[in-house]
Amino acid sequence: MKSGDRVKVSSKGRTYEGVLMPSTTDCIVIKLDNGYNIGIKNPEEIIVLEEKSEKITEKEEKFAITELTKPEIAILSTGGTIASKVDYRTGAVTSQFDAQDILTEIPELMELARFRAKLVYNILSENMKPEYWIKLARAVYEEIEKEAYGIIITHGTDTMTYSAAAISFMLRTPVPIVFVGSQRSSDRPSSDSAMNAICASKVAVSDIGEVCVVMHGTSSDDYCLVHRGCKVRKMHTSRRDAFKSINAHPIALVRYPSLDIQKISEYKKRGEEKLKIMDRLEDKCALVKYTPGAEPDIIDFYVDKGYRGIVIEGTGLGHVGEHWIPSIKRAVEEDVVMVITSQCLFGRVCDRVYDTGRDMLRAGVIEGEDMLPEVALVKLMWLLGNYSTEEAKKLVNVNIAGEISERSLHDYYTIK
Amino acid sequence: MKSGDRVKVSSKGRTYEGVLMPSTTDCIVIKLDNGYNIGIKNPEEIIVLEEKSEKITEKEEKFAITELTKPEIAILSTGGTIASKVDYRTGAVTSQFDAQDILTEIPELMELARFRAKLVYNILSENMKPEYWIKLARAVYEEIEKEAYGIIITHGTDTMTYSAAAISFMLRTPVPIVFVGSQRSSDRPSSDSAMNAICASKVAVSDIGEVCVVMHGTSSDDYCLVHRGCKVRKMHTSRRDAFKSINAHPIALVRYPSLDIQKISEYKKRGEEKLKIMDRLEDKCALVKYTPGAEPDIIDFYVDKGYRGIVIEGTGLGHVGEHWIPSIKRAVEEDVVMVITSQCLFGRVCDRVYDTGRDMLRAGVIEGEDMLPEVALVKLMWLLGNYSTEEAKKLVNVNIAGEISERSLHDYYTIK
Repeated sequence: MKSGDRVKVSSKGRTYEGVLMPSTTDCIVIKLDNGYNIGIKNPEEIIVLEEKSEKITEKEEKFAITELTKPEIAILSTGGTIASKVDYRTGAVTSQFDAQDILTEIPELMELARFRAKLVYNILSENMKPEYWIKLARAVYEEIEKEAYGIIITHGTDTMTYSAAAISFMLRTPVPIVFVGSQRSSDRPSSDSAMNAICASKVAVSDIGEVCVVMHGTSSDDYCLVHRGCKVRKMHTSRRDAFKSINAHPIALVRYPSLDIQKISEYKKRGEEKLKIMDRLEDKCALVKYTPGAEPDIIDFYVDKGYRGIVIEGTGLGHVGEHWIPSIKRAVEEDVVMVITSQCLFGRVCDRVYDTGRDMLRAGVIEGEDMLPEVALVKLMWLLGNYSTEEAKKLVNVNIAGEISERSLHDYYTIK
Repeated sequence: MKSGDRVKVSSKGRTYEGVLMPSTTDCIVIKLDNGYNIGIKNPEEIIVLEEKSEKITEKEEKFAITELTKPEIAILSTGGTIASKVDYRTGAVTSQFDAQDILTEIPELMELARFRAKLVYNILSENMKPEYWIKLARAVYEEIEKEAYGIIITHGTDTMTYSAAAISFMLRTPVPIVFVGSQRSSDRPSSDSAMNAICASKVAVSDIGEVCVVMHGTSSDDYCLVHRGCKVRKMHTSRRDAFKSINAHPIALVRYPSLDIQKISEYKKRGEEKLKIMDRLEDKCALVKYTPGAEPDIIDFYVDKGYRGIVIEGTGLGHVGEHWIPSIKRAVEEDVVMVITSQCLFGRVCDRVYDTGRDMLRAGVIEGEDMLPEVALVKLMWLLGNYSTEEAKKLVNVNIAGEISERSLHDYYTIK
């Protein structure tokens, strides 16, 4: 068996046919008939079909070798897969989930990087809980320690931005950590699965050193947007371009199919941060949305249950009815961290303009600046998990992971 | 004292100087030096300054008469005023709030209509409660009965869209009912107060027979948008163009300063509906926003307190974690109407696609279609106030006041 032989290789119940390529690692490298190279570790069987049936050019030989020196991306699955025929959200991932499955489904990925894959857990996105964020943060940490050049996290779209915010706070990262999902499963012709995965892989080997979300930028297959992990929100129940950066522009866009990356905003560069994990979360935190006439006993309810942090999604610049002030005051006295955000979503809260706002500030509410209510909740969980209550209070309105913009941008990003 | 005399008229502590015009009503009509006519009822004093100092042309004479045959708009103030120097939201309206104050501040209004004004109540917008919606609906009903050609409701912007939704459900109206506010108070150079009031007045005398919200369409002073009362949301804490139609396009736009109305969507015409009021509201209704890991006992809390309706703001297509299903099931068994909407805001909920959704439907949740969560809450209050629980359940996903679109539109309206 030598380079140039046509071979049939069996591995994990699959067989691959192609031309054996030179290899400098412990992988068997096969040039498949579709033109792609594939690296297979510890194959079960290799059958030589034809000896040196094809001539290998010097160029091909070189390519086969560099192929395996490509950067390696670790794909972590949380209950969806960019490669499965089965729907993302149902989480019906096959138990043999591995990089091979993904590469077989989306061979374009092989041009960008090598891949290793891990199923962190297998849950429906709407069943996401803080305890899963801790598991995920640890799994990502481990992969970066094991020198992954970039991380891709496949995630159901329902709660993806909550998870992206959580990882943004829990990890300082020297490499890109890219959340990706699909609004339409890959068995549908309109699926965004493959294109999102390809663009995410491109970002995972880029010079971006941040946690981000990569999803369709429009309903056409023309580009994906790279959103900052704690400035993005799912803004449509079903569209492929549902994910929008709020109060900030995306970091970049990835043209498809050229995969050119176009920078939109400033971002942290690969290697700028050292790997660090702060993985405790206080799950006794709640988000309460204010509506006209709502009774303040919902605040008392959480305080009495021993909650340590409450984010209020108020009206306008960050208000609630004045009948809420006594309950808020009591919560603060009981050492509950109270944060006010706005159900407008866009814009910054400011409680120094009007009487009710000033009453709230006097009662001890902390302004959530231009943070999304959901991000403020995740941040509060993280702050109260890793800092004292007093320290947490001081850090609420201090930018830690890009969650607070100095200047809020009010429009969705569009290509000029 | 005769037409053409220059006079000084005192009324309610103010004095007006100008030329006395012919009048066919019980009003004294004065042509002010700024060129506008003003009609004053029961003045306290009239002093002739100069006899027939100016010649009145035939055209001017005719204008003075038609001026007073113009349609009359009833302006109802809820604690802000389009004419006050004082800020909208603080509600610091002078007790002598009347049409005169508004016309003195915004004389352009006189070209559009005659005005009568009423202070319904004087509260901060964030202190709005269902009981105030009832008062407001009754005040509007009364004005329409007293043959107002159109209604303008001045309202603080924080909860304006909740109130607009409430009035949309509570009243069937043969005339336009126009909510208007201001994001910047009229003492600021960038105030949107006058332009919004002028465009609102134009809509109040138009052929639109619906409840709507008229606010700036862009951050320039080029046009106002006319949003359907139950399809609009405040989407920015401070910008003048904060109000956006969601899942639907606005009804129309009003160019400024030409005041040309340009139709955008189909709407109910003036006179199409007969005046009708259904003004009961069940305030034992709550909006609960789902976040990852949130405990379901928030549902039990409301059920135990005797709440009759709960709107859940779920994730994605309308989901919650599966650990919420038992509490939802129990709530339904206790005859609480449970409605699911989406925190995506844009798009339609659909719980027939995924397992969790199907579990929710089996538990008795009703899909809120493409209703905004806030509108679904107000609708539920109204349904449970005016119908039996069984009837209310059947009407949740039936379009009543334009709150459900047959086809959701996903983009903000922009002029092509």
